[in-house]
Amino acid sequence: MSSHYRPEMTHAGVNPTQAVHAVDEYQNTREMHIADERPLTIYVDRYEIVTLMTLGTQPELLTLGYLKNQGLMTDIRDIKSIQVDWDVSASVVTTVTGESQWEDKLGSRTVTTGCGQGTIFGDIMEQLADIRLTPLKLKQSDIYTLLKNLNAYNDVYKTAGAVHGCALCHGTGIITFMEDVGRHNAVDAIAGLMWLEGINGNDKLFYTTGRLTSEMVIKVAQMGIPALLSRSGITQMGLKLAQDVGVTMFSRAQGKHFLIYNGSENIEFDTELPPKFSVANVIS
Amino acid sequence: MSSHYRPEMTHAGVNPTQAVHAVDEYQNTREMHIADERPLTIYVDRYEIVTLMTLGTQPELLTLGYLKNQGLMTDIRDIKSIQVDWDVSASVVTTVTGESQWEDKLGSRTVTTGCGQGTIFGDIMEQLADIRLTPLKLKQSDIYTLLKNLNAYNDVYKTAGAVHGCALCHGTGIITFMEDVGRHNAVDAIAGLMWLEGINGNDKLFYTTGRLTSEMVIKVAQMGIPALLSRSGITQMGLKLAQDVGVTMFSRAQGKHFLIYNGSENIEFDTELPPKFSVANVIS
Repeated sequence: MSSHYRPEMTHAGVNPTQAVHAVDEYQNTREMHIADERPLTIYVDRYEIVTLMTLGTQPELLTLGYLKNQGLMTDIRDIKSIQVDWDVSASVVTTVTGESQWEDKLGSRTVTTGCGQGTIFGDIMEQLADIRLTPLKLKQSDIYTLLKNLNAYNDVYKTAGAVHGCALCHGTGIITFMEDVGRHNAVDAIAGLMWLEGINGNDKLFYTTGRLTSEMVIKVAQMGIPALLSRSGITQMGLKLAQDVGVTMFSRAQGKHFLIYNGSENIEFDTELPPKFSVANVIS
Repeated sequence: MSSHYRPEMTHAGVNPTQAVHAVDEYQNTREMHIADERPLTIYVDRYEIVTLMTLGTQPELLTLGYLKNQGLMTDIRDIKSIQVDWDVSASVVTTVTGESQWEDKLGSRTVTTGCGQGTIFGDIMEQLADIRLTPLKLKQSDIYTLLKNLNAYNDVYKTAGAVHGCALCHGTGIITFMEDVGRHNAVDAIAGLMWLEGINGNDKLFYTTGRLTSEMVIKVAQMGIPALLSRSGITQMGLKLAQDVGVTMFSRAQGKHFLIYNGSENIEFDTELPPKFSVANVIS
């Protein structure tokens, strides 16, 4: 399979922030930048799939990744083109095989997938049962270098807040950093890029500013990425799924600090840290 | 209408945190508490509606609020009982009129609502067009007292992180504080309580630890609450909807600081603050 097939695509990414006025506690009017949030309705051969609220910087990659992560399309060569037109808030996907066949093939599936977490939940749990990722060996020192390198990103967050950032990382390098108002959109846009460029997940690490909930672990597992690094916390279901699938989970990763909730055997602790004087809850 | 009709309900709230082990950067194993995250499938007369991932502390109120906020049910007296059984991850709603009529009446509607943001988005925008809230006059000093009072809550967040908190407030008092892994669940549980207790939104203030995005403003507007206070940031669509509907929006509210993005004319600035020496971006 050639990994270099590319659908025709617009490049309709927009400026993600707007200047507005706000009144502060001193009753001063200040100019602030806030994150944009636009509806984008995805159509496949004029079949309406979903409307996502997005920052709008990578609408084509978001479309690709959404179709991939929802299991609606599996071969990128089935996609002829993706055309985003903000005037009508639409991302129009045209397939190679054309309208009728798409509806026949995926009509019921689309409804199922669109119908909330409910109906799809069991399906995803079944899919995950087949996934078992090969552990990725990581060095503590490389994690620190990576966290330092990540500080250069998150531009919209620094300007306007109200967005989550995600990055696809390899070693200490950052392949791409995506921000969006919905953290799932940021993940989907990265999935879209991986699909488009034929990037394999198995030697990568996924960074997110958001929490490690079930949905985040499900998406990363579907993308075949064996390590997940978050600045935020973790939920019990996120942990359980990571244990089942074999995702190494770093939570609360900031500066020199992190907590590994799963897969600590994959980490080489190669960094000499200053002694810690108070560790309240160490298990002896 | 009597506001004291109450469906029969279980009280199946569960302990929201679990103790697990994590390895820190010193390679020490520590006992940490993490937030629970459980699937809860809502059925109405055995008709499957949706599966929500929830912390599990208020499954009955979450069920009520979800049905209300999604527009699936409008009169609480139509609900005979809500029975939550975690063994099968189910919240079973039994209506007074019974199965067949529910399916006839709401069958297609349910599919529409369940089918993601996409199909419902236009409907909600149309509904919001009819809502115009009466402004609520607020004093700066009361906002500060309220923020101080709110510090006593957010228990799960303080223990385990990874949850959002929401509160329904009246003056400087807190009627209820809800936490959940999904911030929309926390809002829905509050909507459920308001529906159950016949609480009117028009003199209330809604607090959230989360961001003020379009979805948050839509829900608060549907609940008839004219003021929204957040510790986090705001998006452009959240602001636009707040302007359309008439919701006063406090963003970045912490300590003495806040930014009012809409409705500053409703605030009485009655607090003497220490002089501020550097305000980089004040509009003269």
